[in-house]
Amino acid sequence: MDLFGALEAGGTKMVLAVLDSHGTLLEKTTLPTRTPEETMPAMTDFFRGFPIRSLGIGCFGPLDLNPASPGFGSITATPKLAWRGYPIVSAFRSALGIPVRLDTDVNAAALAESVLGAARGLESCLYVTVGTGIGGGLIIHGKPVHGLTHPEIGHIRAVPAAEDPMPGGICPYHGCCMEGMASGPALEKRWGVPGRDLPENHPAWDLESTYLAQLCASAMLSFSPEKIILGGGVMQQKALFPRIREKTVSLLNGYIVHPAVEDGLRDYIVEPGLGTESGILGSWLLAVRTEEES
Amino acid sequence: MDLFGALEAGGTKMVLAVLDSHGTLLEKTTLPTRTPEETMPAMTDFFRGFPIRSLGIGCFGPLDLNPASPGFGSITATPKLAWRGYPIVSAFRSALGIPVRLDTDVNAAALAESVLGAARGLESCLYVTVGTGIGGGLIIHGKPVHGLTHPEIGHIRAVPAAEDPMPGGICPYHGCCMEGMASGPALEKRWGVPGRDLPENHPAWDLESTYLAQLCASAMLSFSPEKIILGGGVMQQKALFPRIREKTVSLLNGYIVHPAVEDGLRDYIVEPGLGTESGILGSWLLAVRTEEES
Repeated sequence: MDLFGALEAGGTKMVLAVLDSHGTLLEKTTLPTRTPEETMPAMTDFFRGFPIRSLGIGCFGPLDLNPASPGFGSITATPKLAWRGYPIVSAFRSALGIPVRLDTDVNAAALAESVLGAARGLESCLYVTVGTGIGGGLIIHGKPVHGLTHPEIGHIRAVPAAEDPMPGGICPYHGCCMEGMASGPALEKRWGVPGRDLPENHPAWDLESTYLAQLCASAMLSFSPEKIILGGGVMQQKALFPRIREKTVSLLNGYIVHPAVEDGLRDYIVEPGLGTESGILGSWLLAVRTEEES
Repeated sequence: MDLFGALEAGGTKMVLAVLDSHGTLLEKTTLPTRTPEETMPAMTDFFRGFPIRSLGIGCFGPLDLNPASPGFGSITATPKLAWRGYPIVSAFRSALGIPVRLDTDVNAAALAESVLGAARGLESCLYVTVGTGIGGGLIIHGKPVHGLTHPEIGHIRAVPAAEDPMPGGICPYHGCCMEGMASGPALEKRWGVPGRDLPENHPAWDLESTYLAQLCASAMLSFSPEKIILGGGVMQQKALFPRIREKTVSLLNGYIVHPAVEDGLRDYIVEPGLGTESGILGSWLLAVRTEEES
């Protein structure tokens, strides 16, 4: 039986798993994310306990994913200073002696959703997580998109709504980008309490859907994904979905003619098909595919 | 010698060409775009004069490019009413009895630039034409992007500049989208004269570069192309390029860490490598590739 290692590397926790070639989970554990010096030995110990063929990593970013770059396979400008510049791919490769494939956490989730989840059978999808930050993973022609660096759609500009009591946004780089206006911390800063404590009829959600609809409309016009999947902690407020769909249709204003739009985007802007498992399953898919491409 | 037909179908003129398998031009002609009843017979007559193996068409849009759709291969919601719903692929296929491959004019141009022009050797690029409208063609993983419909990046929202005397924009669908704010007609409406009559030091160009930098920054964050190529009539004002680069770097504000950004995007936001030939050469590439994929 072939086994594969999967690591969902997050800013607060590391999820480690071993799966077989069918994606059946054999072992899973979670470790707090401390410094590389503290956390790496515990992770390599875990993976050494299994005869895994390869390791896939879906990692917080930004990452250097350019095979031609000297920093290929490392974490770049993260605010988590202990991990800045850390060569996570080569570290695991030398510790475990197996192929390692890295992508962003959101590209891994998008890959899993496109192969096994809400975008199964499609050649393209956008996966957006709305939580501590806003990040987007992108599959086009069946493969994760990197390009110059990798997509960072959470940082496109938002157009502040007239009724927004905090029109400036909180992103240290861009102020009122999507992350600055609609992430969990932006919600909490604006309303004084975390999103999970705001009732469904609170004006926070109408404003939140305004910004996320801007993001969806911009994505549809920019690169026309076949499905938009919205996950992450903030999207646990399910009342957001119908409002985002309605406002996205309104922003497009009849310009994109397609049955999905005529249908009110009901089957187009959707929840993850894999629940909270997209990330780890995407990391597993990266591991399975190490031999296909680096 | 294998010959291929190429058609660059525009709203005002049709450019028809016959090229060999190396892309050498053997014959070229231009016809005004009238109704399909008037223009199609003249076009099929031209192509019947050569033993072409296949025909590639880069066409004004929007187009139905979904092979599963009943309207596949037709022009959809164009304001050019005589062509709305016209099944251009099946019309040429039955008239000429050869394979026909259709894509948007801008995807064709992007394809040519990625194979032969400014993005040669890269897996991805965005080609934007700034003229009567603003359109974007997108290559990712070496192939044109369609997705749900096809990219229409000219219609993403612009953030009006405080100094803009026409902050509302002229797009009938979206008001202040990029096309509504920065197309040739928007320039002319705002300043009362066509862009070609405005001197290099006119404030029009500073404002124009503000909006096109918004477009470039949004593209880089959304799907991270390896090159952005700006063509079309408005970009004949070459003084735009350094200003767009500078303002794009400023909008990114240090968030995207890459040598291309550190270099001020000098070799990243560029003119077309094929001059005004991107469209017809892209149509030729579509013809050459009919056998690879529909």
